[in-house]
Amino acid sequence: MRKHLIPFAALLATTPAMPQASANVAAGRAQPSPLAPAEIVNAAPKADWAAIAPSDLLVMDLASDGKGKPRRVVIQLMPAPFSQGWVGNIRKLAAARFWDGTSINRVQDNYVVQWGDGNAEDKAKAKSLPGELAVVPQTDYSTRLGQQEIVYSPNSATLRVQDFITDGTGSRIRWYPIRATKDAYAEGTAILAGWPIAVARSPAAKGKRIELSGWPVHCYGMVGVGRDMPPNTGTGAELYTVIGHAPRHLDRNIALVGRVIEGIEHLSSLPRGTGALGFYETPEERTGIVSVRIGSEVSGLPAYEYLSTESDSFARYADARANRRDTFFIRPAGGADICNIPVPVRRVK
Amino acid sequence: MRKHLIPFAALLATTPAMPQASANVAAGRAQPSPLAPAEIVNAAPKADWAAIAPSDLLVMDLASDGKGKPRRVVIQLMPAPFSQGWVGNIRKLAAARFWDGTSINRVQDNYVVQWGDGNAEDKAKAKSLPGELAVVPQTDYSTRLGQQEIVYSPNSATLRVQDFITDGTGSRIRWYPIRATKDAYAEGTAILAGWPIAVARSPAAKGKRIELSGWPVHCYGMVGVGRDMPPNTGTGAELYTVIGHAPRHLDRNIALVGRVIEGIEHLSSLPRGTGALGFYETPEERTGIVSVRIGSEVSGLPAYEYLSTESDSFARYADARANRRDTFFIRPAGGADICNIPVPVRRVK
Repeated sequence: MRKHLIPFAALLATTPAMPQASANVAAGRAQPSPLAPAEIVNAAPKADWAAIAPSDLLVMDLASDGKGKPRRVVIQLMPAPFSQGWVGNIRKLAAARFWDGTSINRVQDNYVVQWGDGNAEDKAKAKSLPGELAVVPQTDYSTRLGQQEIVYSPNSATLRVQDFITDGTGSRIRWYPIRATKDAYAEGTAILAGWPIAVARSPAAKGKRIELSGWPVHCYGMVGVGRDMPPNTGTGAELYTVIGHAPRHLDRNIALVGRVIEGIEHLSSLPRGTGALGFYETPEERTGIVSVRIGSEVSGLPAYEYLSTESDSFARYADARANRRDTFFIRPAGGADICNIPVPVRRVK
Repeated sequence: MRKHLIPFAALLATTPAMPQASANVAAGRAQPSPLAPAEIVNAAPKADWAAIAPSDLLVMDLASDGKGKPRRVVIQLMPAPFSQGWVGNIRKLAAARFWDGTSINRVQDNYVVQWGDGNAEDKAKAKSLPGELAVVPQTDYSTRLGQQEIVYSPNSATLRVQDFITDGTGSRIRWYPIRATKDAYAEGTAILAGWPIAVARSPAAKGKRIELSGWPVHCYGMVGVGRDMPPNTGTGAELYTVIGHAPRHLDRNIALVGRVIEGIEHLSSLPRGTGALGFYETPEERTGIVSVRIGSEVSGLPAYEYLSTESDSFARYADARANRRDTFFIRPAGGADICNIPVPVRRVK
């Protein structure tokens, strides 16, 4: 598991850039206007960006829009150790071309857009699922992050970088606990190896390392697995993405398997369904899905990268999201919730 | 100010309904399935609903959509004591028909939809504003809620009803502090007389009442006042609504003047603008605004009401939003952020 948590440890070998303000104080110059979050991202050095493997992308092409324009949605699948049972199923479903010819069936305002087989409830018409899909247990909604690898520092209520020490190697992971004690849904939240994660820790005891468990958070654009009533956990054949205020009550009740990194506007701007829960009332209202493929199968796909959450640039970006000091703002908030610090993603320049 | 804070105090004279579960325990019956939030709202007695005066509504009719369907957006204006300088301007702008013939100029995904005079930046073409608009100071972003009227009970970190005692009359206001200490942006949050409000309190001192200040929160659907760089606070001629995750960093930096109570899908599903900040790059992409009127000027407007946040039904609804116990859920969250407990609004049956 350790390898999944420190994929970018190598980046820490680079010398962290000195924060702009400190650099200017040191040089005796006047303070410049503080940068806006987007300006910090734009100024981030190439070394602070981490590649997203094409094999970790899911590319969904919708039917073209009314004006004949193509509509492509690019999803980044969630890395281990989170939700891997469902992610494995999704890889099989894409390989089997399961979603080709299916559709967007539900658009509920301030909630979700959902897609899959529009006839799934009708046994006579439902598409058959590929064999060998895993039945993933409810316990996989949350993941033990281990006590060997991670030492938790529980005493921080303010926004700052914390160091976590891995076992053996001495490599450090930096992560962002977002006002760790100020979340209505969890003991703490953090952006961990590029993903918004809520965390709980075991009670502190002298001489004992603290055990940490975590689960992904339903932020805007996150992709989850539709399911029937529990204990059903869904296969992954029915997916949705969040298009409104983070529905955090779904955390640990539904699996999250990724996030939309490009093209979410093709989903979020669709007409809202007028049936119960935002389902379309007629098949004609649905938007067709032409194909869904793993990124490595898609020719001509751009390369994508994200701002490494272990980088110094991300530290400055997250701090600026929580404390807007650029000219427009008169009162920095002094904090931010986990979903208000989206991880920047871009096409490789 | 007191009258604004207890408009529904009379409702408290009615006997609160016994919560369903307790009623069944008392009767020795088996516990029924706990109700979902929407079921609690649907079962709320008429007395738990509070009328919204047509004079507190702003009705915006957009140009009909591509299929000739009308598109009406209904906004409830914020009551005193919050943001009344801007609300007063908006009443004058509507009376002057200022927005008739203007347009939706900006749609930024996961952020805002903004409307007003698309030529405002071009002095030669800009529409002239009606006279006598107030210049509202920045200090009005936050409002002193008083110490005479309210005694604050600071020791609750869990979700429960708190009582506040008004001065003199002995009338009590019940409100909902939503995990008062678990908000990343403010000392506390509450739904106060129907609106999401963040609060700060003065330090406690023996024998001294605690002073409370509050400000409205940027939840999904809230309507705010676009402005230029500070100290400009905007007139109200340029408005926006939130169509994504609550951008709480805007709290106390921009005035909030209301919320969309019907028809937000006509804004949230508009094509996203491709210019900077989601502005449309050409006038042709804009959606026209036919008219904006105060509700009392609109013939045939339905009557609207909201679930009184002082009612027992609202208490049960808010608790259910924070602790989903209906069949679909396996793990209640144990809390909710202020923007995940939207105040139910409906047309009067």
